[in-house]
Amino acid sequence: MARVVVDVMLKPEILDPQGQAVQRALPRLGFEGIADVRQGKRFELEVEGPVDAAALRRIHELAETFLANTVIEDFTVRVEEPAVSEEAPA
Amino acid sequence: MARVVVDVMLKPEILDPQGQAVQRALPRLGFEGIADVRQGKRFELEVEGPVDAAALRRIHELAETFLANTVIEDFTVRVEEPAVSEEAPA
Amino acid sequence: MARVVVDVMLKPEILDPQGQAVQRALPRLGFEGIADVRQGKRFELEVEGPVDAAALRRIHELAETFLANTVIEDFTVRVEEPAVSEEAPA
Amino acid sequence: MARVVVDVMLKPEILDPQGQAVQRALPRLGFEGIADVRQGKRFELEVEGPVDAAALRRIHELAETFLANTVIEDFTVRVEEPAVSEEAPA
Repeated sequence: MARVVVDVMLKPEILDPQGQAVQRALPRLGFEGIADVRQGKRFELEVEGPVDAAALRRIHELAETFLANTVIEDFTVRVEEPAVSEEAPA
Repeated sequence: MARVVVDVMLKPEILDPQGQAVQRALPRLGFEGIADVRQGKRFELEVEGPVDAAALRRIHELAETFLANTVIEDFTVRVEEPAVSEEAPA
Repeated sequence: MARVVVDVMLKPEILDPQGQAVQRALPRLGFEGIADVRQGKRFELEVEGPVDAAALRRIHELAETFLANTVIEDFTVRVEEPAVSEEAPA
Repeated sequence: MARVVVDVMLKPEILDPQGQAVQRALPRLGFEGIADVRQGKRFELEVEGPVDAAALRRIHELAETFLANTVIEDFTVRVEEPAVSEEAPA
């Protein structure tokens, strides 16, 4: 079983008002130096069998049709390497 | 300016009914072989200045307080490498 | 065709950190007097045929299974009256 | 304390691919007769003091600036009547 991650974000030219509200709140909450915040969606797909080029193409198609609205959103598809640690810093 | 990504996902033991609905819809939509779908949130933070250990610790704190509810969600913090291509396969 | 609305909100005892970040940002953005902000999901279902008690029961079931996680979320189901204006104030 | 609800939905002409995926999954999950599903956001604001026309105007402004992107989303503002039961049918 491999994990494929599809990230969906609003296109850069589309305003993200809630991300902006969070960004503007940060100094007051004690967090300086963050110039922009944008919020999107992350989908984790557990795929049976090998994730070869054909499988990735199909997931790309799936993302284009049912996970993202490509008029307003960009998306990326990638296989998550199990070896890469994603832990937050201690 | 560096980009730090915070991914927030429901903990594995917490049911994600919408992800499940999508997963169950897939065979009917022509996509076989996807055993599970989970949906979370992805935050992209544009950080001014160097993203050193101290900056990452502060973003970790921010995520813990204002981006994730750690009772029901896990999160990860990572610096996005500008060199890594995130393009979907052609 | 009738519209049935399903609102899904985190249970009151479950922290909503993003709603909190927005709430705390409000005074700085010039909005005073808002004591709490919570963010949930709204589903609009267009239903064919009459929305009788049996139809509402089925939608209730659907919400319970595929729209909400009832361990952490509450939901409500209601028929949206077409006569009620939902316009924002001028 | 009064509750004001802001509902934010994608404009009707903007495709909602996830709502569509859920809608297409429904027959297979045993739910017939639902022609469309759209998913949006619901914000519940707890307002201190009376919710008069001036307060509603300010919340309308807040929604326009920080809760919705009016290029792609519509929103509505309303005071939630405490007397109205929102319970799902038994």
